[in-house]
Amino acid sequence: MVVGIIGLGLIGGSMAIDLKRRGFADRILGVENEFVNAEAALRMGLCDEIVPFGDCVRKADIVVIAVPVGTAVKMLPEVLDIFKEEGREDKIVIDTCSTKSQIVRSVHYHPLRGRFVATHPMAGTEYSGPWAAMPNLFDGRACIFANSEESDPQAVKVVEELYDVLNMRPIYMNADNHDVHTAYVSHISHVTSFALALTVLEKEQDEKHIFDLASGGFSSTVRLAKSSSDMWVPILTQNRDNVLKVIDTYLDKMKDFREAIASYDGKRIEELIHEANRIKKILR
Amino acid sequence: MVVGIIGLGLIGGSMAIDLKRRGFADRILGVENEFVNAEAALRMGLCDEIVPFGDCVRKADIVVIAVPVGTAVKMLPEVLDIFKEEGREDKIVIDTCSTKSQIVRSVHYHPLRGRFVATHPMAGTEYSGPWAAMPNLFDGRACIFANSEESDPQAVKVVEELYDVLNMRPIYMNADNHDVHTAYVSHISHVTSFALALTVLEKEQDEKHIFDLASGGFSSTVRLAKSSSDMWVPILTQNRDNVLKVIDTYLDKMKDFREAIASYDGKRIEELIHEANRIKKILR
Repeated sequence: MVVGIIGLGLIGGSMAIDLKRRGFADRILGVENEFVNAEAALRMGLCDEIVPFGDCVRKADIVVIAVPVGTAVKMLPEVLDIFKEEGREDKIVIDTCSTKSQIVRSVHYHPLRGRFVATHPMAGTEYSGPWAAMPNLFDGRACIFANSEESDPQAVKVVEELYDVLNMRPIYMNADNHDVHTAYVSHISHVTSFALALTVLEKEQDEKHIFDLASGGFSSTVRLAKSSSDMWVPILTQNRDNVLKVIDTYLDKMKDFREAIASYDGKRIEELIHEANRIKKILR
Repeated sequence: MVVGIIGLGLIGGSMAIDLKRRGFADRILGVENEFVNAEAALRMGLCDEIVPFGDCVRKADIVVIAVPVGTAVKMLPEVLDIFKEEGREDKIVIDTCSTKSQIVRSVHYHPLRGRFVATHPMAGTEYSGPWAAMPNLFDGRACIFANSEESDPQAVKVVEELYDVLNMRPIYMNADNHDVHTAYVSHISHVTSFALALTVLEKEQDEKHIFDLASGGFSSTVRLAKSSSDMWVPILTQNRDNVLKVIDTYLDKMKDFREAIASYDGKRIEELIHEANRIKKILR
């Protein structure tokens, strides 16, 4: 099988490594517009060849779109158009984006809609680029299949095999539902980390040594603030309505804490912490 | 040297392990009011003996107060009173609390003030109790000495040796300054984690499977929400003014994000993320 991967960053690059060494891909064609990244991806062996977008789509059996979701939404219809021009109704394209509503809408009426399988492999780190790619990134994690009833069953089956090779558990979900869920368990965490980083960095302007006291707890809470704007600007704008709703609930909770602390209300702070402690049931 | 440790939880228990096995303490006397904890601490070998508070203070050469700061503030003057009654001006008491202003104020005019050394070993996990104690917890971390000019130089010297045995780097700091710094790099992280946990747990009431999609990033951001109210209620109330100031700055940053997302202002979101990314300079 020839796999074409558009975007050899953290996700695309990590997929390339495991699909190749686990025998799913005989050959990997990579698309990378940034010269430095393309060069690095080739040298690191993430792909067999760097090719132009059109060549990749024409030559690959499966095309993986692993670029930020703003670009992916524009690219996906072009991929299906090329399949159509070539009369190749046996080929498959998937995306790996973190928001799903807009991308499934972008090809809803495309005559080859069935050849697209919308997926979101839930794995990653706060790093990006081909240097962030690593083996085993996906092992044991969940992969969302969004609106898979709109895809041809045969295409879904092949993509299920692909993610099975990556050792991922499939979860089937409506795209809109996916975007609500990820707003809660992923997007909000990034916003709160960014805001926390900004808060402390601002203070650092007059307290040079503020970070001397930073401990493991702080690092863990602020780690996601290293995430790239290329990835997160499109996620936050595409998932605007859900993200705003979660931010508003979150701001209410912050205000509950603020009020309890302001009025020295130890009893109320204790209640809030006890309730928050229930997070133990899901975190080990 | 006989070391008395009041509170054999995460901090007291971990200190006990390393002070004993590294030869600083010949004998460790523990004080634990909760029967189950006392039993566990003894069985785990965290101390040689569990004794009543008064006996511990009378028999130990150094007393370590490792209980939540609300209790510590009441206990510290009692310890110095016993030193005074016994005419023992050679003994030393230290605390390990996360806020320092109130505890140093509590004994400011005590005739034996010099025998107290206020410290904050900056290490820990989100777990508590004797079961959370572990060897090497303090290795390589910073230990704050607060207002050490108010302590007798000889006492400071012995406590420096104690923390040197724990492989900690001493940092000398004014107590009020300490509380401003920790509000930024520790206390706020806990409040934001608690609020995040509450936000998602509330949503879980109507979306049972919301945590299926939680990834490593979410876990890392919300990890501190497992922290105990016993520890955090007194910290947040004692450090109220500093914590409120940081919460307010943080809420402003959250509102900046909210506004940029609400108005689809990709340029502004990008700016905010780029600025937040500067946190890389302090996090590896």
